Amino acid sequence: MYEGAIQDLIDALGRLPGIGPKSAQRIAFHILQADAEIATALVDSIRTVKERVKFCVECGNVSEEDQCRICRDPRRDNTLICVVEESKDVIAIERTREFRGKYHVLGGAISPIDGIGPEQLRIRELMARLADPGIVEVILATDPNLEGEATATYLSRMIKPLEIKVSRLASGLPVGGDLEYADEVTLGRAFEGRRDV
Amino acid sequence: MYEGAIQDLIDALGRLPGIGPKSAQRIAFHILQADAEIATALVDSIRTVKERVKFCVECGNVSEEDQCRICRDPRRDNTLICVVEESKDVIAIERTREFRGKYHVLGGAISPIDGIGPEQLRIRELMARLADPGIVEVILATDPNLEGEATATYLSRMIKPLEIKVSRLASGLPVGGDLEYADEVTLGRAFEGRRDV
Repeated sequence: MYEGAIQDLIDALGRLPGIGPKSAQRIAFHILQADAEIATALVDSIRTVKERVKFCVECGNVSEEDQCRICRDPRRDNTLICVVEESKDVIAIERTREFRGKYHVLGGAISPIDGIGPEQLRIRELMARLADPGIVEVILATDPNLEGEATATYLSRMIKPLEIKVSRLASGLPVGGDLEYADEVTLGRAFEGRRDV
Repeated sequence: MYEGAIQDLIDALGRLPGIGPKSAQRIAFHILQADAEIATALVDSIRTVKERVKFCVECGNVSEEDQCRICRDPRRDNTLICVVEESKDVIAIERTREFRGKYHVLGGAISPIDGIGPEQLRIRELMARLADPGIVEVILATDPNLEGEATATYLSRMIKPLEIKVSRLASGLPVGGDLEYADEVTLGRAFEGRRDV
């Protein structure tokens, strides 16, 4: 144990996700020994995020305005909604430049083990958006894991009665990967989803 | 890329040692979504460290006073100085409760590849302390790697003419380890350093 302040910093860093005691110690000493500007930049950016960043009232994406950049953009297609778990999934899909519709960020996935049920997610807000008769398709882009699949199944059951088309991102072999290294489940999905060429 | 503040925080976190872009993103969203107290505790502890923590004028260990806790302690043996690379090595040795002397923190090890020569380390300060005729032994506890060994060799050449006993921590098999998993160098050192029983 160190004296006072340095140990407090190690403890505070150690409470962040993915930072163990050894890296907390390394980062604390880095901050201690680095130029004052590095610490100031970090402190300022933490405070600015807590003060300025909020969640888009429409889609739940991170934003510094009431509405996020994508919801504000008049060129985006209002008839398509892509449902994702987290804001970082929005960034990943935007990077592909394949999708020009709007998003809906759930804030997680259904996971009984972690005590996350449908009420903890932004599903009520999604259903409210779907009351708009202009919406043609909802693309379920939750993660291809147990929780993401459960969430997609739950949502598709909720949305289908509204007579809106519901789709799910394709599962299959990663592009650039080796077939022999694919796990059985992925390879199985790739067979199931095979397409005529 | 995110909008403004959240991206600034991801960038600031990504400049810390051992934090890649993915963990920077994860930590930034954690800070964004967590209670305000978590962010406040982190901000306060960074500022307190930069304001309050300094280096002991005597041994170079981290301290909130001019002299660190160990240098201030009248029960510590003034005749022994244990030389280490970093403050975290002091903590590691203190944990063993084997050593009751004083420390000297070099602030690193000689590493020509990283442009660190003897002038960049607190070696002049060490030699000044060794002018005290009461000092009986210097224990070189630099890391058992290339840089640490080079530093120990350099220091022992500097100190021996002063007719002070110089020792080095033993290298050998880690206690609780398996002999068959020890690397050749460690096993070789363990043979070299074998003791009569």
